Amino acid sequence: MAIGTLVGRGVPRIDAAGKAQGAARFTDDIQLPHMLHGAILRSPHPHARIRAIDVSRAVSLKGVRAVVTGRDGPGEKYGVFPHSRDQYLLALDKVRYVGDEVAAVAAVDRDTAEEALGLIRVEYEVLPAVFDPAAALKEGAPVLHDHAPDNVSATVGLDFGDLEGAWKGSAAVLEETFDLAALSHCQLEPYVSLASYDPATGQLDMWMPHQSPFTKQKGLSNTLGIPPHKVRVLKAQIGGGFGGRSEVSPADYCAALLSMKTGKPVKIRYSREETFTVTRQKHPWHARVKLGADARGVVTGFEADILVDGGAYNSTGQIAISVPYATIEATYRIPNVRYRATRAYTNNSIRGAMKGHGINQIYYVFETLLDGLARELGIDPVEMRLRNIMNTGETTNSGSTVTSSGLREAIERSAAAAGYGKTKPAGRGLRGVGVACGSSIVGFNMGFRSGSTAHIHFNEEGGATLFTGTTDNGQGNDSMMVQIAADQLGVPMAEIALVSADTQLTPLDPGSYSMSATYVSANAVWEAAKDARRQLLEQAAEKLEAAPEDIVLADGFAQVVGSPAQRVLIRSLVIKALQKGKPISGKGHFRPDINYTRDWTTPGRQQGQVTGTYSYGAAVAEVEVDPDSGAIHILGMTGAQDCGFAINPTAVEGQSHCSIAFGLGQALLEQLAFDSGQTFSTNLVEYGLPGAADVPEMQTLIVESLDPSGPYGAKEASEALHIAVLPAITNAIADALKVRPTRVPVTPDQVLKLLQGKR
Amino acid sequence: MAIGTLVGRGVPRIDAAGKAQGAARFTDDIQLPHMLHGAILRSPHPHARIRAIDVSRAVSLKGVRAVVTGRDGPGEKYGVFPHSRDQYLLALDKVRYVGDEVAAVAAVDRDTAEEALGLIRVEYEVLPAVFDPAAALKEGAPVLHDHAPDNVSATVGLDFGDLEGAWKGSAAVLEETFDLAALSHCQLEPYVSLASYDPATGQLDMWMPHQSPFTKQKGLSNTLGIPPHKVRVLKAQIGGGFGGRSEVSPADYCAALLSMKTGKPVKIRYSREETFTVTRQKHPWHARVKLGADARGVVTGFEADILVDGGAYNSTGQIAISVPYATIEATYRIPNVRYRATRAYTNNSIRGAMKGHGINQIYYVFETLLDGLARELGIDPVEMRLRNIMNTGETTNSGSTVTSSGLREAIERSAAAAGYGKTKPAGRGLRGVGVACGSSIVGFNMGFRSGSTAHIHFNEEGGATLFTGTTDNGQGNDSMMVQIAADQLGVPMAEIALVSADTQLTPLDPGSYSMSATYVSANAVWEAAKDARRQLLEQAAEKLEAAPEDIVLADGFAQVVGSPAQRVLIRSLVIKALQKGKPISGKGHFRPDINYTRDWTTPGRQQGQVTGTYSYGAAVAEVEVDPDSGAIHILGMTGAQDCGFAINPTAVEGQSHCSIAFGLGQALLEQLAFDSGQTFSTNLVEYGLPGAADVPEMQTLIVESLDPSGPYGAKEASEALHIAVLPAITNAIADALKVRPTRVPVTPDQVLKLLQGKR
Repeated sequence: MAIGTLVGRGVPRIDAAGKAQGAARFTDDIQLPHMLHGAILRSPHPHARIRAIDVSRAVSLKGVRAVVTGRDGPGEKYGVFPHSRDQYLLALDKVRYVGDEVAAVAAVDRDTAEEALGLIRVEYEVLPAVFDPAAALKEGAPVLHDHAPDNVSATVGLDFGDLEGAWKGSAAVLEETFDLAALSHCQLEPYVSLASYDPATGQLDMWMPHQSPFTKQKGLSNTLGIPPHKVRVLKAQIGGGFGGRSEVSPADYCAALLSMKTGKPVKIRYSREETFTVTRQKHPWHARVKLGADARGVVTGFEADILVDGGAYNSTGQIAISVPYATIEATYRIPNVRYRATRAYTNNSIRGAMKGHGINQIYYVFETLLDGLARELGIDPVEMRLRNIMNTGETTNSGSTVTSSGLREAIERSAAAAGYGKTKPAGRGLRGVGVACGSSIVGFNMGFRSGSTAHIHFNEEGGATLFTGTTDNGQGNDSMMVQIAADQLGVPMAEIALVSADTQLTPLDPGSYSMSATYVSANAVWEAAKDARRQLLEQAAEKLEAAPEDIVLADGFAQVVGSPAQRVLIRSLVIKALQKGKPISGKGHFRPDINYTRDWTTPGRQQGQVTGTYSYGAAVAEVEVDPDSGAIHILGMTGAQDCGFAINPTAVEGQSHCSIAFGLGQALLEQLAFDSGQTFSTNLVEYGLPGAADVPEMQTLIVESLDPSGPYGAKEASEALHIAVLPAITNAIADALKVRPTRVPVTPDQVLKLLQGKR
Repeated sequence: MAIGTLVGRGVPRIDAAGKAQGAARFTDDIQLPHMLHGAILRSPHPHARIRAIDVSRAVSLKGVRAVVTGRDGPGEKYGVFPHSRDQYLLALDKVRYVGDEVAAVAAVDRDTAEEALGLIRVEYEVLPAVFDPAAALKEGAPVLHDHAPDNVSATVGLDFGDLEGAWKGSAAVLEETFDLAALSHCQLEPYVSLASYDPATGQLDMWMPHQSPFTKQKGLSNTLGIPPHKVRVLKAQIGGGFGGRSEVSPADYCAALLSMKTGKPVKIRYSREETFTVTRQKHPWHARVKLGADARGVVTGFEADILVDGGAYNSTGQIAISVPYATIEATYRIPNVRYRATRAYTNNSIRGAMKGHGINQIYYVFETLLDGLARELGIDPVEMRLRNIMNTGETTNSGSTVTSSGLREAIERSAAAAGYGKTKPAGRGLRGVGVACGSSIVGFNMGFRSGSTAHIHFNEEGGATLFTGTTDNGQGNDSMMVQIAADQLGVPMAEIALVSADTQLTPLDPGSYSMSATYVSANAVWEAAKDARRQLLEQAAEKLEAAPEDIVLADGFAQVVGSPAQRVLIRSLVIKALQKGKPISGKGHFRPDINYTRDWTTPGRQQGQVTGTYSYGAAVAEVEVDPDSGAIHILGMTGAQDCGFAINPTAVEGQSHCSIAFGLGQALLEQLAFDSGQTFSTNLVEYGLPGAADVPEMQTLIVESLDPSGPYGAKEASEALHIAVLPAITNAIADALKVRPTRVPVTPDQVLKLLQGKR
């Protein structure tokens, strides 16, 4: 095999057998000697001042080793950005939502820790609370934070072109108000955090599910007041990320504080209910949106007034409301724009990053209106999209260039594969077809602006070790890294040991968010492998008396192209190099070429390349609605993902299956129910997570646009298609019902209301 | 601080607090989930054929998870060298000493495993045994191994010059027969091995005390038939090595087999008795030695016939009998030599490497006769040595050059510090003074001939991680590596995380034997740090607009020499470099310049540089002997160690204290007692390990000869002085008694016999 022959193939994942056989070690599988178990006391009130906390009875309970409250920590507020720190990870002054962390206990077992929670007496002064974001912004509403007397957590305002002129030049203009529910990531692994503090060295070791060990390290270091090099986040298997495991969790903080207090390891494992209520949720949206097009269907203007319910704390704040615009403008040419978004504080659960972070929402509203305009103007919805999409080389309003786009191919191939436009047999119910697009920013430097570095070194006795800081949340990043290195180096994947996601062992990496694992991290691995490859070829050239460019590394050998007998074991080259004092080890680095002004609030100031590249996707859905029951049956789903290049097509296909299931859940099933700040639906069934029986037959297509800056041309495989699925389904429902749903999920109840003309 | 100001200082060790507080994690501290406990069934016979093994009752015992015998392994013989493999790590055909491994059990706890051992029925055919090496070499002796019908495990023969001529030209010639006891390393940590095999990945993880993870990996891979990259040896703290933890142990092998059979982690912990009897022991010597000198005291000839009792298996074989000559010839100029050594197989415990491996023995016999000749010729013993020692630049008989020697200084300074030659107050008993020299080969490539590689990389958020494959057995290697890196890089030691001794994480290293940790491994670290330093200086030069050579790295800053205000944080340089796509990471490699023919058996064929360099030591002992009881009291010990350069003088001093205690134990106290192959004295008290009360007042001196190839000029700090201590004490006893002891340890009983004219 030569370069590029191991990639592009559907090789089995390196972690497949271990996960299938139950040998994979997740955080909760880790047992440390003398380990204690922690539990967290939470606020029963949505808004209250803490007058006093009496832990004396809890401390005295047999088996309790430590109790901490906000006064035991260094008193630093936490936040994703230095300017947005607004949360004590253990309440000091007030509680702001039902579930807010008040105290934590470490005990010899979990039962004792939970029993001790019941012995802690907290004296609350209950305060008026506000749960509706619009109400929260009104004069006289209860104020959550002193720094935000208006309850505004973040705003974004962007203007491009001449919107009034746009409306005047439009053949059709639609305006609509939309609502999207709060959602939960539903990672199959509940949140669990294990801290082990060594009083002798002052080092804190931590394990937890995360999207980047370095982001956790940085946050914990800031909040705990421990230097970063003394906070080590180590590798464990992770049962799902989906954007929800980026930030430091109060569980991390409490486990760390308790371990520092006791000198023993402390594990805190959230129940499923806690995972639902006190980990981040997806922002619910209320948006008034207006879209116009000329007679040819070309979009003339777009106006959006978005209000999102941020819950009690800032979390990703402005990111949540700025990223949506940054993606939609790279999919559709929109000459005139007025975009306003506000994130309000309320006494609800905290909202943060989730897969399709604000992007699911904006594509839903945009694609719904685009479809509406198409029908109004008598243009086929597929054609409508092809007339408006951005192409490779075009630059967005805010100054980002699309370096590669497979969107046209994605639309055309998914339409063709779905038999779009062909006459279908009639069904018992109302049938409809919908199409929609999606895109993602790829390699936006959310965490660290220093890119990713990777190292690889060969061992004398065979095999190599590859070091990358990136995280595998379950999507297969670990395998991808090994596959790329093996491809470059001509050794079997099984001979490359991977060391990943450990702040002490692995070099800096921005982490698995914003679609950076393939585009950024794998790029660094690619470069490191190419560096080691150059060194091997130099040795081989000398040994084989051939030019390096005439030598191929494959199957453990370096051999002269066209002369297979002229070959030498790679292992011999490694030993030879060592004996010359030139150990074979490669170093690689990649940083996306990003350069933009970071002012998202002053209209006209957001300028420059916001992301390394963009990925695209398109989906076609066919549905049948039962007009009596309102039940929606998905007849078929076809989706295409422009992943740039499919390093492992099987993995891309798996991600596409996930994209369809994920989008389908959002469109039809999933929602978090609240009442007075209390989260209900705190199990997977009540919440509505799709099960295997909910997932329809599907066709997934791979589009390869070969990005000039991606590794082998690759970009990402898990986001763009999933964005398209939700609006493709709602557009299919609109096609079936002849009325647009404006609330998602579209439940049977909602369908019946739509059919009755009520929304 | 500039380069060279953090080294040369007695900084606290990085592991000191953890070890003092009990937080350091040794192998037995590691608890893995579902871990089983193993125990080994051993032969009660010194020599027997195994007819049958019935494990059925053991397998049926409640709590037993697996039983393995030799038939469960791949049936590969083990040996230090490919040509010397003679040991099944679980007996297949025969047992050859009392303690030989026959079967192993894994059970839910240790008690159950031990109970199960009692249920295994082994049918033995007892064979005649031989315990005396001379008897073993005789015609008709019981034969241990089919491949060695003469019971010869290894031989060495070397001839230089004209020995008959030498004797003729001598003013005095002494000939004597000497005996030295078998010894035990007495590491405070009993041997323990933990294996964790993952059936999903086929990877075997192992923890145990060792002197090199790579040597263990290689041996286990060969013996278990697992590819090397699937055997990972991980880091644990180690409670002593002293040469005895180099080889694969049957405990490693059995733990691995049991883990592979059960799919669960298995820990085997030896009792103190097992650690005494079935881990390697120091070779007992029986040697006839002849030494001559001319009237000026210049040595004319040296003849040695050495017979060592190797016990049942080969272990280090030829190394044990060739290294002694390689060191003595680099201390003393010996124009004419006849050196013959044989290692015999016997049915005793297995002998292998131990601190002063054959070297303690040869210096004892040589220094004893040199002292005898001095007295016979009327030359002061100190002067006698100064007349015969090799100096820097001289080449040995076998072709090795002494690249640096501080021996003259060591002798002169230790004599001066001891007040040698000054009149001392008389005591109640017989008083005597003795002097002796020692030396060591430094950086002989015993394990891997590819030298050591080290890596270091900086992390954006402060701190760096240093990777070195070498092992810290307790002597402080880990600290030394960090100290050197911190010195080069201008950051505090606390900001450098060390990753050491892990076959997967760390690059290849030959391990902590043959005095290579400082000279070889630290050299690679030094080079890696210098490489990273160059990269930092390049960034700093640009930022500070100064030449790299005018910039100093110190206290976390790069600053212009003489202009302290012109400075920049090293951390800023690291970030700046990352943003330029040039992450700061250094790679270093060192391989001793060794080149010799490896034929030790054909006289005249052993030629070339056998070692990177040599270290030297000298000791002066003063003793008082009670002629009535035979008790020997050490009045004073003075020792000098030529360590090349003292990277950490406190650590060198600590090693020198150990050298004196170690030598003293060998001279006066320690010995393993045997009867018919059964080891007695299997606890520290009966064996005679010196306690704090046995260790006298001591003066230790550091000699710095600044070796041209060592890091900062450093060589080693733990061997050369210790070699000198034993003969300095026995020479002092000879001076007191006016008769030479020819057996060590010199016990009170022995003293009384010497005084009575009996030996």
